[in-house]
Amino acid sequence: MELFAAIKGRRSCRDFLEDPIPDSDLHEILEAGTYAPSPVNAQPWEFIVITSGAVKERIFSEADRCRLWAMEKTGWKWLGKYQVNFLKTVPVIVAVIGDPEKTGVDMFQEEGRVGYQHACAAAIQNVHLAAHALGYSTLWFTLFDKKIMRQILGVPLEKMPLAMVCLGRAASEIPAVPRKELKEKVRYIR
Amino acid sequence: MELFAAIKGRRSCRDFLEDPIPDSDLHEILEAGTYAPSPVNAQPWEFIVITSGAVKERIFSEADRCRLWAMEKTGWKWLGKYQVNFLKTVPVIVAVIGDPEKTGVDMFQEEGRVGYQHACAAAIQNVHLAAHALGYSTLWFTLFDKKIMRQILGVPLEKMPLAMVCLGRAASEIPAVPRKELKEKVRYIR
Repeated sequence: MELFAAIKGRRSCRDFLEDPIPDSDLHEILEAGTYAPSPVNAQPWEFIVITSGAVKERIFSEADRCRLWAMEKTGWKWLGKYQVNFLKTVPVIVAVIGDPEKTGVDMFQEEGRVGYQHACAAAIQNVHLAAHALGYSTLWFTLFDKKIMRQILGVPLEKMPLAMVCLGRAASEIPAVPRKELKEKVRYIR
Repeated sequence: MELFAAIKGRRSCRDFLEDPIPDSDLHEILEAGTYAPSPVNAQPWEFIVITSGAVKERIFSEADRCRLWAMEKTGWKWLGKYQVNFLKTVPVIVAVIGDPEKTGVDMFQEEGRVGYQHACAAAIQNVHLAAHALGYSTLWFTLFDKKIMRQILGVPLEKMPLAMVCLGRAASEIPAVPRKELKEKVRYIR
């Protein structure tokens, strides 16, 4: 798929078919993730590929608990319509784990120690695009408590579970989400 | 350009030609950035396009100060070879500014308040890929003090200057940086 078509055609999906994903496709998608840039090429990401029904069920429970907590905390009633049942049936969840030790020079900077997270986010974006190019849809899911997710996935305290990327074929067409015009987002210093 | 070719062919560049970048290309590159996903579609990014020689000079001075400080702080002698003179001559520097208010539900979470940064990083990755597809090279540059960069760019305290994306045509061929094999980065929970 052409790059700009992939960038503009990618959608966030919350309704997946249960068809499993062939290993070769999964390999290609995750390998694309590893081509993201990172501080001092530290490659601070790890991918946990979850297909276990029992573990998906635990991720769902944590996300649902977090959703109800967030509704109460924020008062954002629209969260009510964002059910997270798809976490139980999506064929693959890829947990992206970051390593704060692999953050480069910003470990010494004020407002720093985030470079590794940015690199992981770039890897996640590559994963989204690669999946889309191969005909899959994705969701960048972060509604979970990091401590609890570490327990569910067996991730040590010193590593950071940054996101769950849900991955499968979309069960229905997904409308485009509106974008602000570029001129609202750009300033020039000439 | 085909998506996987763009993802795998992108390089971090530290040696740019001074040729200016046509507005139409710059528009296409930054627009690609705005197609990144973000929490509750908040689009938490702002791009400052810097072509002013005087401002590039100030960014260089700050980066060079930071480089020398980092060498002393880290003892990483290899930082000595990473001169940052290219900041003075690269045709365009795009400062990417994040808005912590546009971070979604994670504003209430422990180890949270970073969703907006992840979205901005995804936007930056789109910018890298789009630039590469149009024949340009880029560098994701973060060696600066955020407080000082806010002053240089006139960014209010409550916004976060996350990165300077250097953008121009590469002056020389850039070798590929090695990647760890995927199997070293993946674990399965089946």
